[in-house]
Amino acid sequence: MPPETVDLLVCTTCRSATPANPLAAPDAEKRPGAELLQALQLAAPESVRVLAVECLSNCSRGCTVALRKPGAWTYVYGNLTPENHVPTILEGAQKYRDAENGLVPWRERPEHFRKNCIARIPPLEAPNV
Amino acid sequence: MPPETVDLLVCTTCRSATPANPLAAPDAEKRPGAELLQALQLAAPESVRVLAVECLSNCSRGCTVALRKPGAWTYVYGNLTPENHVPTILEGAQKYRDAENGLVPWRERPEHFRKNCIARIPPLEAPNV
Repeated sequence: MPPETVDLLVCTTCRSATPANPLAAPDAEKRPGAELLQALQLAAPESVRVLAVECLSNCSRGCTVALRKPGAWTYVYGNLTPENHVPTILEGAQKYRDAENGLVPWRERPEHFRKNCIARIPPLEAPNV
Repeated sequence: MPPETVDLLVCTTCRSATPANPLAAPDAEKRPGAELLQALQLAAPESVRVLAVECLSNCSRGCTVALRKPGAWTYVYGNLTPENHVPTILEGAQKYRDAENGLVPWRERPEHFRKNCIARIPPLEAPNV
């Protein structure tokens, strides 16, 4: 993976966090997570590698994505929908791509990212930054 | 890091998720996260490398730890306390250490881990397991 490329992992199992009917959309192809994956695959620039993941284990606050790149912090974001958040996710992914260690200054993050960061993991190279 | 060793990352910034007084314990040394770190450092076996991290960004559901090892899924667990969960964390860490790809069968995980998994991230080698 070239250094200017990031992985955007998308949980395809996610239902929305607050669906009108939590038993709706039993068809895996129509789950919000799968729809979000498709929308991001269509819209992402070449430098953002969109990858499907079966479960990111953030089921209560889906849809869920994670951003990672070598030597950087990994970030997990939640409470996303395919309808509303594709531009936000791609904006955040590109800022992450351009930020040293993946550390985008708080004020520069998309507002949804500021309020819906589920977790972050330090890079192997700097576990206690 | 030898293959039989795991990283146990401990967020030292964490206050407990539901403190009696959320403004209590302003002293960073006395935060539950810092206390959890100390307790784990004292109790962990050699194969579990306990590392301090300033923030794992799971502030609303701390205390927080993460488990990782090369080529495996990374897991984040929350709602932990230094008083109650040190044995649970170490049990889970050792099962994780011994499991291929870090994938401990659900029924074999400590009960707290089953109910308080905050997120997981796939290894670079297998993004869509």
